[in-house]
Amino acid sequence: MISREKHDRMANAIRFLSMDAVEKANSGHPGLPMGAADVATVLFSRFMNFDPKNPLWPDRDRFVLSAGHGSMLLYSLLYLTGYEDITIEDIKQFRQLGSKTAGHPEYGHISGIETTTGPLGQGVSNAVGMAIAERKLSEEFGSDLQNHHTYALVGDGCLMEGISQEAIALAGHLKLNKLIVFWDNNSITIDGAVSLSDSTDQIARFKSVNWNTISVDGHDPDAIAAAIEAAHLSDKPTLIACKTVIGFGAPNKQGTHKVHGSPLGAEEIAAARKSLNWDAEAFSVPADVLDAWRLAGLRSTKVRMEWEDRLGATANETRAEFVRRFAGDLPGDFDSTIDAFKKKVAANNPTVATRKASEDVLEIINGLLPETLGGSADLTPSNNTKTTQMQAITPADFSGRYLHYGIREHAMAAAMNGIALHGGLIPYAGGFLIFSDYCRPSVRLAALMGIRVIHVWTHDSIGVGEDGPTHQPVEHLAALRAIPNLLVFRPADETETAECWQLALKEKHRPSGLALTRQNLAPARKEYEEKNLCAYGAYELVSSSDAQVTIFASGSEVEIALKANEMLQQRGIASRVVSVPCVELFMGQPDDYRAAIIGTSPVKIAVEAAVREGWDAIIGSDGIFIGMKSFGASGPAKELYKHFGITAEAVVESAEKRLS
Amino acid sequence: MISREKHDRMANAIRFLSMDAVEKANSGHPGLPMGAADVATVLFSRFMNFDPKNPLWPDRDRFVLSAGHGSMLLYSLLYLTGYEDITIEDIKQFRQLGSKTAGHPEYGHISGIETTTGPLGQGVSNAVGMAIAERKLSEEFGSDLQNHHTYALVGDGCLMEGISQEAIALAGHLKLNKLIVFWDNNSITIDGAVSLSDSTDQIARFKSVNWNTISVDGHDPDAIAAAIEAAHLSDKPTLIACKTVIGFGAPNKQGTHKVHGSPLGAEEIAAARKSLNWDAEAFSVPADVLDAWRLAGLRSTKVRMEWEDRLGATANETRAEFVRRFAGDLPGDFDSTIDAFKKKVAANNPTVATRKASEDVLEIINGLLPETLGGSADLTPSNNTKTTQMQAITPADFSGRYLHYGIREHAMAAAMNGIALHGGLIPYAGGFLIFSDYCRPSVRLAALMGIRVIHVWTHDSIGVGEDGPTHQPVEHLAALRAIPNLLVFRPADETETAECWQLALKEKHRPSGLALTRQNLAPARKEYEEKNLCAYGAYELVSSSDAQVTIFASGSEVEIALKANEMLQQRGIASRVVSVPCVELFMGQPDDYRAAIIGTSPVKIAVEAAVREGWDAIIGSDGIFIGMKSFGASGPAKELYKHFGITAEAVVESAEKRLS
Repeated sequence: MISREKHDRMANAIRFLSMDAVEKANSGHPGLPMGAADVATVLFSRFMNFDPKNPLWPDRDRFVLSAGHGSMLLYSLLYLTGYEDITIEDIKQFRQLGSKTAGHPEYGHISGIETTTGPLGQGVSNAVGMAIAERKLSEEFGSDLQNHHTYALVGDGCLMEGISQEAIALAGHLKLNKLIVFWDNNSITIDGAVSLSDSTDQIARFKSVNWNTISVDGHDPDAIAAAIEAAHLSDKPTLIACKTVIGFGAPNKQGTHKVHGSPLGAEEIAAARKSLNWDAEAFSVPADVLDAWRLAGLRSTKVRMEWEDRLGATANETRAEFVRRFAGDLPGDFDSTIDAFKKKVAANNPTVATRKASEDVLEIINGLLPETLGGSADLTPSNNTKTTQMQAITPADFSGRYLHYGIREHAMAAAMNGIALHGGLIPYAGGFLIFSDYCRPSVRLAALMGIRVIHVWTHDSIGVGEDGPTHQPVEHLAALRAIPNLLVFRPADETETAECWQLALKEKHRPSGLALTRQNLAPARKEYEEKNLCAYGAYELVSSSDAQVTIFASGSEVEIALKANEMLQQRGIASRVVSVPCVELFMGQPDDYRAAIIGTSPVKIAVEAAVREGWDAIIGSDGIFIGMKSFGASGPAKELYKHFGITAEAVVESAEKRLS
Repeated sequence: MISREKHDRMANAIRFLSMDAVEKANSGHPGLPMGAADVATVLFSRFMNFDPKNPLWPDRDRFVLSAGHGSMLLYSLLYLTGYEDITIEDIKQFRQLGSKTAGHPEYGHISGIETTTGPLGQGVSNAVGMAIAERKLSEEFGSDLQNHHTYALVGDGCLMEGISQEAIALAGHLKLNKLIVFWDNNSITIDGAVSLSDSTDQIARFKSVNWNTISVDGHDPDAIAAAIEAAHLSDKPTLIACKTVIGFGAPNKQGTHKVHGSPLGAEEIAAARKSLNWDAEAFSVPADVLDAWRLAGLRSTKVRMEWEDRLGATANETRAEFVRRFAGDLPGDFDSTIDAFKKKVAANNPTVATRKASEDVLEIINGLLPETLGGSADLTPSNNTKTTQMQAITPADFSGRYLHYGIREHAMAAAMNGIALHGGLIPYAGGFLIFSDYCRPSVRLAALMGIRVIHVWTHDSIGVGEDGPTHQPVEHLAALRAIPNLLVFRPADETETAECWQLALKEKHRPSGLALTRQNLAPARKEYEEKNLCAYGAYELVSSSDAQVTIFASGSEVEIALKANEMLQQRGIASRVVSVPCVELFMGQPDDYRAAIIGTSPVKIAVEAAVREGWDAIIGSDGIFIGMKSFGASGPAKELYKHFGITAEAVVESAEKRLS
């Protein structure tokens, strides 16, 4: 049992490390670490199951600092509890170029950082995903191997953001009772008092979405501990509302927005040292306090070793599967299975929408990969994401593999990030491409973290038809391609769809999105080819050694390119066609491959039912672009293509005009 | 008083027009119009103050169909009540190319469409903005000129979306008691029952954010009427939860997701005709029913004429101001005021961050334009959006001109759309550029609608510094430039900032965003120039008739371009510098201007602390780009610029290398 005095000193260690680091960096957020230090100390010294020496232990409790600006709270905890990849020197380098202790916690920098946070509302939504993963894996592998809690710390900012409200509603619906959220209720935001902009009764709001709620004094360790104990017994997720004082311990500034995001200044820090009775130097933690923290870090060693024993005693096959799943490796026969599917496709050459092609591929994938967790933001019949293996997960039964995320694109994307970060599962889910805008912040974070999350974005152009411009993506391909480290696939037929899925699944450290059509497409590739040609990003579909014209196209417009090519041949104009299923992969090819594919034909044309932005890199700023210059319109898809001039005839006409 | 029988027939007219139009289009959503017909009939026949002959009457009640897929509900209402710009022929052309009756209601197509809806959650958030505008203008011009209600109809989809939850919390906080939201509580979504994905107690949730709530049978006209009457007396916004049957009247399909988004089929429509005792042909409305509806359309004529009288009796100056404000015209001395400011700036040539420059410009603008309504998503001290004229709006006092929107970027953007759509005010508000991702769907809708909404996006690059990659936009300029009809300004100094603000405010039919720096910038333009040079999108800052090198740059990188230019001159290399404050405006210039600005120097270099995408159109695919190829990092801004190689030295080196 930790005495109150010891607790206070342990919490104060967090406070001073945070004050000192922010002061040295002359930048950062001391308010949250100081205010939430008591909550964090209780959690990490009495409850969290974690092992700093084995930070990736699959059954560890997860802790997500959703209010990522309070990063010094997390860095302090990781250093104090003895994570080996963070030292006091790292803390001194807070917010400096190249340091592990970035302004906001970044996944991959230190092993105890479970997710990158900072953009508000994301972390708590990741935590919902982690809790989903835990429950699902516990159902699958048993509570001997998966039985942990997920904790998140949120501020008012997180709770005001719509994404968190989506995620919280989903968690309440699914009764994720091992999810515990601490609300750092300090009544302060950057602009001033929370009351400037909000009057929400958070307790009532959480109750309305099926949460258990507990309110405590966030500076009373025993009350916090009692709340956590009570939360552990709940059959619902729990909100622990912790009334705190932001910047607790800074005698003149605490409780105001002045401590939120600025260094306290030497004078105030000196005053805090006095008021908290702390005489250690900056960055120095008294031995008794460090010892107490290191002991806290050793607390779960036994629990972890017992878990190792249970894993060791697990049947070989199950154990191997569990280990494989957490390593993120695909089964050995993955490639050959996709290959066999490609052969079958080449034998039939179906004319299908790529969303349907994707369903066919997923049918194979989901049969082979028990780790896929599918879903849709209430567009299941349109996204074609639910294959025969996929039964719906319900609050009472997590044996299914399909999540009805509801009309919550943003929380879905963030939850998928959490599922991927948790390990053991590969999340994919569907939405309309237009609604990628609703979840962009989470897609970006997946790219920044480098995690395997797969978005199925159907209805990817004016091919949507009658629903009109509100539902027709025009700028989305360009906007998504602009995100570093994200792969945007736009396959042209069933074969390319299979190849793109294969690539997306094999990318352990990059998220992907597949842009798929609503409308049927004729096959672009009719012959079986062992190589995954989409892996090149762009490749020749039709060659010509002396081409006057090269037509580049992606997805649904490859059909148009092929037709235009035929028409050009008929008119005696030599031309070639390049399919471009993934611009990012193409840009990553060696210079000579890129040069060969771009080629030297005097006329270069790109066809894509979207804006031109980005295509100049391939066709040159003098290249011809056949695509969209404006928003779309409501009408039958075929008429729209004509109306906007995205036709084989337009391609041919522009080529002839340029050549004449 | 409308008898129950008459009511039923009026509601059934909506139902059959909707069924018939969807059937003819073979596409669309009959479920909502049929289920919500009773609610809409009560509202439009008994309560709404509107005048189909004067559809833009400034004090009309606003009606927003947030569940935009139910567009036939709105089209039916507009046709039946006698709007002159919609005929039965238009209804027959539902969802056809070029028709006014698009798949989703589109602002500008028919005068009674108050906003474009379809992407869920947007409409209700627009409605919050409209209610803010009404309250603000009522405070300013008195209730004689502004005193109307704002009604919105939402479905479960709208309520699950995070944006609506942000907007609802804001509305409750501000006590927008003239906002009344009908929830079409039909328990069905596309995937099936709402219970598949949600367990929210909506009544409790609305109560938790300070709303008045009423539950009614959505097919009982008197109960609906009583609820609206009660709502009118509330001092809070009101949710009227209307329990409805989706597809009401389709005997075999109603109450299921089968009626949501597909034609009913001839057989089911015939059955509905029988069950609802409706013997009129398709698209034919019996004379008694049409008469009743047209009478409903005339209901508010007297109210409108009384309003006209009051406007006529208003003091000349106030009346002229009111009329000017609703026409969206700027005061006559706007240009000269900006011009005078530019002179002052040229006399001082301050070194300032453009976010601070923006504050200086806003100080002038807000002094001149009483119609600006400022705000920020809780980043007021960082966005510099609050000038001396701006006092905060509070729930009790709307005399201020500044809204603390809270940490709700998405609802803020959508509310700004609603404020602009309402008329009489010009909304602007601040956020970090990185968080433009959080509000992209609303920014897109502003662009699609062509409305004057101005986003102040500060902290626009790695210049953010220590906060790191989660807060450093890299792809956002490219992603925003990809949106058609949106102007993205990135001024380089205080003079350009003034010019960009001038342009943004003069664009009555386009939204704008200003990307502004956190860090100080040396002035790029030192001489006063009467012309607004930013209006060209790009222009020469430094000329050279025989330039070997042209350097293009925007915003903070203009400083780097100018320094590189000097270094090149010193090395005897002739070079010129082009400032590119607005790519979209530049692309819209005549070909000869564009060609002249791009020029013919053998080496073209673009410098922008962002991804390359889009720049090839100016520098060519063989041009040199000095910018970002990855996400940013945490560290002091100056070090980051060096680390990522965005320096004058790098520009010079690359130029020399290319020339050698």
